[in-house]
Amino acid sequence: MRFVAVVLLATSFCFAQEQGGFKPATSNVLDAQYPKVDSNSRVQIRFKAPDASKMRVNFWSGPKADMEKQPDGFWTFTTPPMAPGLHYYTIIVDGAEVSDPGSTAYFGGGKWASAVEVPEAGADYYQPEDVPHGQVRQIWYHSSVTGKWRDAFVYLPPDYDTSHARYPVLYLQHGAGEDETGWTRQGKANFILDNLIASGSTKPMIIVMANGYASRAGYVAPDLTGKPFGSPEFMQVMQERMGAFEDDMTQVLIPFVDKTFRTLSDRDHRAMAGLSMGGMQTFQVTFDHLDLFSYIGGFSGAANVFAMGNNKLDTKTAFHGAMADPAAFAKRVHLLWIGVGTDEPERMRTGLKNLHAALDEGKIQHVFYESPGTNHEWQTWRRDLKDFAPRLFQSAGKQPK
Amino acid sequence: MRFVAVVLLATSFCFAQEQGGFKPATSNVLDAQYPKVDSNSRVQIRFKAPDASKMRVNFWSGPKADMEKQPDGFWTFTTPPMAPGLHYYTIIVDGAEVSDPGSTAYFGGGKWASAVEVPEAGADYYQPEDVPHGQVRQIWYHSSVTGKWRDAFVYLPPDYDTSHARYPVLYLQHGAGEDETGWTRQGKANFILDNLIASGSTKPMIIVMANGYASRAGYVAPDLTGKPFGSPEFMQVMQERMGAFEDDMTQVLIPFVDKTFRTLSDRDHRAMAGLSMGGMQTFQVTFDHLDLFSYIGGFSGAANVFAMGNNKLDTKTAFHGAMADPAAFAKRVHLLWIGVGTDEPERMRTGLKNLHAALDEGKIQHVFYESPGTNHEWQTWRRDLKDFAPRLFQSAGKQPK
Repeated sequence: MRFVAVVLLATSFCFAQEQGGFKPATSNVLDAQYPKVDSNSRVQIRFKAPDASKMRVNFWSGPKADMEKQPDGFWTFTTPPMAPGLHYYTIIVDGAEVSDPGSTAYFGGGKWASAVEVPEAGADYYQPEDVPHGQVRQIWYHSSVTGKWRDAFVYLPPDYDTSHARYPVLYLQHGAGEDETGWTRQGKANFILDNLIASGSTKPMIIVMANGYASRAGYVAPDLTGKPFGSPEFMQVMQERMGAFEDDMTQVLIPFVDKTFRTLSDRDHRAMAGLSMGGMQTFQVTFDHLDLFSYIGGFSGAANVFAMGNNKLDTKTAFHGAMADPAAFAKRVHLLWIGVGTDEPERMRTGLKNLHAALDEGKIQHVFYESPGTNHEWQTWRRDLKDFAPRLFQSAGKQPK
Repeated sequence: MRFVAVVLLATSFCFAQEQGGFKPATSNVLDAQYPKVDSNSRVQIRFKAPDASKMRVNFWSGPKADMEKQPDGFWTFTTPPMAPGLHYYTIIVDGAEVSDPGSTAYFGGGKWASAVEVPEAGADYYQPEDVPHGQVRQIWYHSSVTGKWRDAFVYLPPDYDTSHARYPVLYLQHGAGEDETGWTRQGKANFILDNLIASGSTKPMIIVMANGYASRAGYVAPDLTGKPFGSPEFMQVMQERMGAFEDDMTQVLIPFVDKTFRTLSDRDHRAMAGLSMGGMQTFQVTFDHLDLFSYIGGFSGAANVFAMGNNKLDTKTAFHGAMADPAAFAKRVHLLWIGVGTDEPERMRTGLKNLHAALDEGKIQHVFYESPGTNHEWQTWRRDLKDFAPRLFQSAGKQPK
């Protein structure tokens, strides 16, 4: 009783110190008081730089603004209410773009960046709940394609070690500038699957999260100085890396996974999905290898929607003609799923919507999902996975092939 | 996303620009050209801060110096030759202490800090070699002590999934300001064990790496602003957390591990070691629970060497009298191992050497290891693990107990 009272007092003391209900973000490192989030989803940033002359905060899909210097050498900024989810940001100290030491570092934008978690009211599907938890394993394999050791993360469903069953496999890819850690650290894919499996709505499955960047052994990229995005030289390097990734995945990683884990290794039990760049990779890899995959997901990225622009996909000729016969395609590909957030940049939304329209027009059976109110960020992709995963492996072996 | 792709590609062609044999550190993020290391173990730091008026580099166990501004808005600094191993550092931009975006982020100093890997000539024992690789699993468990979900990393030996064997377990702890990711990301413990097991010199074992920070459910730490390390307020929080960690490990984590994995769960097959703060925790936990542990390792930290100062350990009374009878202790504790780097701070070396002398004087069988030329850094602890691990579980069940 005395213990309880002490706890209550100490807790309320803490609350009294917080202004306007601002609390340290759940994405902070141990004991870091900032960034803070309040119940209106506003974010407070605070950063020590006593000798700086100018400080800016740079939310990648949010406010980019000057911070205000306080007498104590700290600079502060409070955002307007933000969408739920994990928001990447950096701080610009006198022209130097850096991470906030109060934040857990998440690999994004090609570096270990900061991010702040804004809770979504009532959404616990990506939280660790009181359900059986799968494990996430880091594995290492030597790639004959890249000539190097590569690693990947593998989610094993909760009953993997106690059952003698074999499981279907979802290959799940991160976006540009991210890496194989993204889907668990930022995306909480493991908790999403734990919860979906516990509710009985999703088949237990293995998820493999690989690094989407690869270079063939001996490959040396040309000098791209002065060659902008989209230039032939730039696209050549990107294509080269995409090709190396495709070969590494299909020739090395998939066989390694099938050898290492108790998988169901036929195409009916193998899916691939990815976000943004990972969505484009998914469409390239799966349509080049429909002998290997029968479930396909593009989360805010698919079928090279960037390059497509306003050109409409021709379902009769695209992807080596795989969709030319809609009925045959529907039998062969058990799920074609694309999604985008309603607050994503216009170019991205247009790309996905045009793809959706083209698929409709070509009578290609597919799912089009829109995440309400979210941008090109992880809350969109968490929701995508929550909608996508329950649709996997439900029909495999039952439908006529 | 477009921006990100540009950055990632545009930085990848500068190999021709390397001066004096400087090459990007292996600890860099993909495509980052700096920091660089040359064959004389000098490190070049380069950091963009066009509007900064003062920049300093801050190696935690190395140079702390002003950087030099170049005409292109980058600041540079080249260190003298450094010891081999992973060196934590930060950059101070006009008073703001930040991480270098070119470096992989490692959790140290209570934040995601930078570090640069300086190779050790001829030392491949912590590299991924062409040998069978174990997996590193992240597991989640709900702690009745902390009232929260906690995670831990678990190394499983290469043959774990194919054998039906049970394995001994080493609990291996990080240092102050680090976390459960340290021993694999910084320490390369998994590769060290892969190589030791492949060479036949070390018994296959499970390694559990937990987070050394814990707070009892409901505990609210007082505000430590202005309370230095070692102050009564600081030490009170530390003791509170040490106790919570001890209870979490012995009452929750160990039973969870023994339930989850095929362990040999008697004290003859359970070891604990840790570095720095983790070494102190090891001595506290193991000597409080000799019913659970029979192998003990203190890597640059043991028996509260900080608090001990020049006070000599009294082996007759210390640790609840566990060492009072040296012969009985040698039968009960199969290995007592302590180590320190020869270049560690004097206070640390003195603490360990005094402990070594006191153990000798008390005729307590133990191993004292000195890592030549290394500081209070990860190369010391990699070497410690390489010396320590082969001594584990060799005699269990053979020696009289």
